[in-house]
Amino acid sequence: MKAIVVKPPNPGVEIKDVKDDENKLSNIGLVKVKILENGICGTDREIVSGKRTSVKPPIGKDELILGHEAIGIVEVGGYGFKEGELVMPINKRGCGKCLNCLIGRPDFCETGEGLVAGTKGLDGFMREYLYDDPKYLVKIPPAIKDIAILAQPLADIEKSVESILTSQKRIPIWTCDDGTLNCRKALVVGTGPTGILFSLVLRTYGFQVWIANRRELLDNEKEILDEPRILFYNSAKGYESLVKDVDKFDLIIDTTGASASIIQELVPLLQINGVLGLFGFPRYDNFSLDYKIVQDFVINNRIIIGLDNGQKPHFQQALIHLASWKSLWPKTASKMITKIISINDEREVISSLREKLPGEIKVKIVWE
Amino acid sequence: MKAIVVKPPNPGVEIKDVKDDENKLSNIGLVKVKILENGICGTDREIVSGKRTSVKPPIGKDELILGHEAIGIVEVGGYGFKEGELVMPINKRGCGKCLNCLIGRPDFCETGEGLVAGTKGLDGFMREYLYDDPKYLVKIPPAIKDIAILAQPLADIEKSVESILTSQKRIPIWTCDDGTLNCRKALVVGTGPTGILFSLVLRTYGFQVWIANRRELLDNEKEILDEPRILFYNSAKGYESLVKDVDKFDLIIDTTGASASIIQELVPLLQINGVLGLFGFPRYDNFSLDYKIVQDFVINNRIIIGLDNGQKPHFQQALIHLASWKSLWPKTASKMITKIISINDEREVISSLREKLPGEIKVKIVWE
Amino acid sequence: MKAIVVKPPNPGVEIKDVKDDENKLSNIGLVKVKILENGICGTDREIVSGKRTSVKPPIGKDELILGHEAIGIVEVGGYGFKEGELVMPINKRGCGKCLNCLIGRPDFCETGEGLVAGTKGLDGFMREYLYDDPKYLVKIPPAIKDIAILAQPLADIEKSVESILTSQKRIPIWTCDDGTLNCRKALVVGTGPTGILFSLVLRTYGFQVWIANRRELLDNEKEILDEPRILFYNSAKGYESLVKDVDKFDLIIDTTGASASIIQELVPLLQINGVLGLFGFPRYDNFSLDYKIVQDFVINNRIIIGLDNGQKPHFQQALIHLASWKSLWPKTASKMITKIISINDEREVISSLREKLPGEIKVKIVWE
Amino acid sequence: MKAIVVKPPNPGVEIKDVKDDENKLSNIGLVKVKILENGICGTDREIVSGKRTSVKPPIGKDELILGHEAIGIVEVGGYGFKEGELVMPINKRGCGKCLNCLIGRPDFCETGEGLVAGTKGLDGFMREYLYDDPKYLVKIPPAIKDIAILAQPLADIEKSVESILTSQKRIPIWTCDDGTLNCRKALVVGTGPTGILFSLVLRTYGFQVWIANRRELLDNEKEILDEPRILFYNSAKGYESLVKDVDKFDLIIDTTGASASIIQELVPLLQINGVLGLFGFPRYDNFSLDYKIVQDFVINNRIIIGLDNGQKPHFQQALIHLASWKSLWPKTASKMITKIISINDEREVISSLREKLPGEIKVKIVWE
Ligand SMILES: [Zn+2]
Ligand SMILES: [Zn+2]
Ligand SMILES: [Zn+2]
Ligand SMILES: [Zn+2]
Ligand SMILES: [Zn+2]
Ligand SMILES: [Zn+2]
Ligand SMILES: [Zn+2]
Ligand SMILES: [Zn+2]
Repeated sequence: MKAIVVKPPNPGVEIKDVKDDENKLSNIGLVKVKILENGICGTDREIVSGKRTSVKPPIGKDELILGHEAIGIVEVGGYGFKEGELVMPINKRGCGKCLNCLIGRPDFCETGEGLVAGTKGLDGFMREYLYDDPKYLVKIPPAIKDIAILAQPLADIEKSVESILTSQKRIPIWTCDDGTLNCRKALVVGTGPTGILFSLVLRTYGFQVWIANRRELLDNEKEILDEPRILFYNSAKGYESLVKDVDKFDLIIDTTGASASIIQELVPLLQINGVLGLFGFPRYDNFSLDYKIVQDFVINNRIIIGLDNGQKPHFQQALIHLASWKSLWPKTASKMITKIISINDEREVISSLREKLPGEIKVKIVWE
Repeated sequence: MKAIVVKPPNPGVEIKDVKDDENKLSNIGLVKVKILENGICGTDREIVSGKRTSVKPPIGKDELILGHEAIGIVEVGGYGFKEGELVMPINKRGCGKCLNCLIGRPDFCETGEGLVAGTKGLDGFMREYLYDDPKYLVKIPPAIKDIAILAQPLADIEKSVESILTSQKRIPIWTCDDGTLNCRKALVVGTGPTGILFSLVLRTYGFQVWIANRRELLDNEKEILDEPRILFYNSAKGYESLVKDVDKFDLIIDTTGASASIIQELVPLLQINGVLGLFGFPRYDNFSLDYKIVQDFVINNRIIIGLDNGQKPHFQQALIHLASWKSLWPKTASKMITKIISINDEREVISSLREKLPGEIKVKIVWE
Repeated sequence: MKAIVVKPPNPGVEIKDVKDDENKLSNIGLVKVKILENGICGTDREIVSGKRTSVKPPIGKDELILGHEAIGIVEVGGYGFKEGELVMPINKRGCGKCLNCLIGRPDFCETGEGLVAGTKGLDGFMREYLYDDPKYLVKIPPAIKDIAILAQPLADIEKSVESILTSQKRIPIWTCDDGTLNCRKALVVGTGPTGILFSLVLRTYGFQVWIANRRELLDNEKEILDEPRILFYNSAKGYESLVKDVDKFDLIIDTTGASASIIQELVPLLQINGVLGLFGFPRYDNFSLDYKIVQDFVINNRIIIGLDNGQKPHFQQALIHLASWKSLWPKTASKMITKIISINDEREVISSLREKLPGEIKVKIVWE
Repeated sequence: MKAIVVKPPNPGVEIKDVKDDENKLSNIGLVKVKILENGICGTDREIVSGKRTSVKPPIGKDELILGHEAIGIVEVGGYGFKEGELVMPINKRGCGKCLNCLIGRPDFCETGEGLVAGTKGLDGFMREYLYDDPKYLVKIPPAIKDIAILAQPLADIEKSVESILTSQKRIPIWTCDDGTLNCRKALVVGTGPTGILFSLVLRTYGFQVWIANRRELLDNEKEILDEPRILFYNSAKGYESLVKDVDKFDLIIDTTGASASIIQELVPLLQINGVLGLFGFPRYDNFSLDYKIVQDFVINNRIIIGLDNGQKPHFQQALIHLASWKSLWPKTASKMITKIISINDEREVISSLREKLPGEIKVKIVWE
């Protein structure tokens, strides 16, 4: 079958024929899924560019099928899945050893030995079809098929917000005097797909949300943030004037994935009992905090929390949120998929895997 | 202004002119809302029929404005509300004394002294306009205005499910081996609006859901339950054959509001660690459980939980769910409002307040 | 080795020699424990009397070694246990299948297939020594060896209170205006060992506690309840005068293990948001509740919860509480062990297994 | 009456006569408490040395009564307190505005306007007697009066551990395969009173505990750590050899209160899903973390949490733990109070407020 393949640690990517899994004994208990579409994300491009050092092919191989965002259609069902149903495979798989993996939550795996499709020891989803364990398949409601590919990156954010809200339970009352979170102020740093998705989820939970970048918004970004009333702040000159206008923030999320030094800018913006969520993967530099800032952090019950990938319950929650946004913020929803490429348009596929276009939110490859 | 008025404990209802609240000193700090529509529910009809003994007019009055489901438009805003925004007033108000009311959660009021608009000590929402405390106003997204009136009854159910899921946290793991609730089986007893809304919420949380009644479903009920794959069971001959097919239930919700004896039918259907949620208000009879059933209840960590009204966070959650259903299950969403009556069609309004039509899910009165 | 043996379903008990487990292959990975003492509880007597229908010998056997309360000393250690350390084996064992058992919490087993030492499919602890899985051994602090045998029955109560407090988290605020539980009123029904242990735990959590029985307290019971300021109520004439004096109760625990009809007496005594915990195993009769009581239950967010056995974390919590009581309430602690019998005093051992003496709290058999 | 008084921001301290509160109108509703003893802590010495810049006398005064650790006896009771009962006043008081303060939890005050007795805007407890709000008085069990003064510093630690365990609930399973925390490894950095109390609490919760300092332990410190099996590590040469022996840590607590740079030493020692709790107040320097360490932090779901003072529920929990330690670890308990000084020995009192002696755990001043 056809697949999109990389040979880490070498840069490069190609569309080629790979040996298929048809008729394997090991397919017993699995569901056969024909892939309909794949999403491309920054991680894919990092692998293609040869910059992601942690990427690993399956044991005994030197090639890896790329892709961790996919929607497919069940071709041979069973185990609760029927032919013709739409499904999304989950990328992170359990280690088979630790308690969290045993109960279906490899997102908190304690051994670090779990495989991740498309990036770590397991072939990804950019291929004609796959046989997969029903435990790692999420049903996709046909009514939101157009934007459902976002459920994969969104699942990570659902899990992150869940982690944050659970951690905040250490505070007897973090809700407002009407029982909601409407008085809580959140700052999301970064206006990439992750920053935008975080903002949308936090709005859905009732937070007031500011989103920041060091450049002005592009037109399509503006349109996306308009209906949900997410406020933009240009942080090119720092955050001083934002804090002057708005006050400090109860929740700050870093999604920048650039210099680690952003952390030292953000910690002082935290409100009493506030949380700094680190989602973006810093790529260089360091951050440094003074003892006085640490004193302030300690005395005010603050936390800094590392936020990582989501699992099946978060994929399902992501789908509910996507469905709600389609009704609530139809313009926003319609602007999230910025490009659709046919797998047959090989040049365009390869080019999209190499470079992000300005204003891109999500690019889809469709198999036809 | 015009209003729909009752004189408890007398049966009867009339549309009449009442003194308005215009220019009152006590309106300072309040938002002026012009009512656009009201929903009618069984409680209203119980009051109109003179059967609800607990109904009370405001202190010092013998008349009560009816209605606890409403959508309005802000006419004079402030306090975070702008002219032209859609809002829904919340019926249950705090007692001003207990801690739960102080933090915005009168749904867990400990004094029982809180007022409830349209039923207990406070005029309701079936009137041309009202001045209300912004703390008790929920913003309604215009995109789902057509079905948003359901947010009031749905809020009660959102709160109920939240209460149930929190109580189940006593069990270290109640999620399935994929981290979701997809293996959990829920039985909702009663196919009225409440039973249907419960079923929809539980499907949204990932439960497998059966809904039961002692009669066959009407066509419109069938259509509503189709897209979300809620399974119907005719319980006219008891639950034996259901349990034989499906096994016992992890969660059972009684929404019947008829004989209390239903409880003795349902307790034996509970799975290990299972919950029986009592939402419906039984109207007559009693229930009786044998010591052996109690032993079984004790040894299997089961609970029976009383489920009551929701508050602002649940209204907001209800709106997100309604928005998601509009995308996910468009036919279902389109069948939920079964009738719309103009306030000017006085005969029809009064008749709707007197009698429920077969197949009714929600009737709306629109003010124009 | 010597052991105390029953032949269910026949009544009777004998001390006799049984085949030992020495040198078995299946002992690999296990810790060898020499038993020092056993506690006797009502369950043992029920088995001995032939009245407990659910008792089962190990598969393929017709005899069962009795006993589920024991303290031993490690003779051959390993796996974190050293020779000479005191340990208590846990009676309830995992089914090896369900998620709760996999994570060490068979107290919420979903299959019901777990074995229970001394009562269900597994030989108990009334024997000279046993080889046991370190996962099911709890270390006993030597400083409280005199009362540590109480950790087994107490573990069940620790788990029960944990379940109750978790369920109460559905209420935003159940703590008082000083952040404690000091304003909450608890009623424990039954003054047997279970009722007394419940009262002590609830006092430790800060509750005001009343304990009730239909007879006056014996002198030793009075002395036990004195230091912790647990108040006694004689319920021979019902609970009316108690409620008149004290008001309704936030928490009621039934430990009577007699007629199921007690439940219909207790439900109406519940406060708003209150909990009725069922711990005692009713032995006969039924209970019946009127629709009005059910309405009241529903509208006031109440729950009824089945409370069952504890697991290793609760044994450890029990030991901390026992240690604290020894300091806080030394007289109480010194009165909890009401009799100590040598295993060599065969007549006394058999007699104690047959009949409970008036005022008995805990009888210990010592192996010497 | 006699009191120990400071004049911030000046260094120095004196024992002098101050105007008493007798017969004040504002005493209505308060309980009169005669002080029996005070504890001295590092904060007191920081104030006396003039180094604590945040210290403030009550509004309109230039003097402040020192002391935030005290045990007294009720002289004029009421409101649930009886003459002769022992009590401990709580130092942190609510702001009267925010929700957390309204529900009795000023430890999470959101305005920062709450007063703190002995340090911030409110006279402390080193005086002959005080009139105090019953809401801020904790009953002290006479049986542990000898060590009960430790309940004040211990309350902060109880609250810290509660905050940590709640934050860890974001992980589906953080307990071990026997349901306990016995497999979890904690490192406490600092062997002062705070470090020792943290170690004891964590042992009580079942953690394996290592305690570290850059010097060898003194003999009395060794004796304190012996019974609870807390392991000592000399970190003078860094933590490399500790991690080699023990592996990384699930929980690390910094109690050093010295250079902020300790944080950059500790973050890399965290296990997957691990927590770094910052309790100590760093006094100088800063810390710096590289982007790679941040990546590791993010991908492994770690958190850093600021830990501050406890409130009434934590004082009560502290008393239960102290009582349990007195039974479990009698030698440890007996070594915690390292010196007792009479208030009449003025020279010794002043000297103790100026300087900490080597090996000091807790010094008490007794009023007689
Ligand atoms: Zn990705
Ligand atoms: Zn794992
Ligand atoms: Zn209604
Ligand atoms: Zn209230
Ligand atoms: Zn027992
Ligand atoms: Zn099991
Ligand atoms: Zn201090
Ligand atoms: Zn406050």
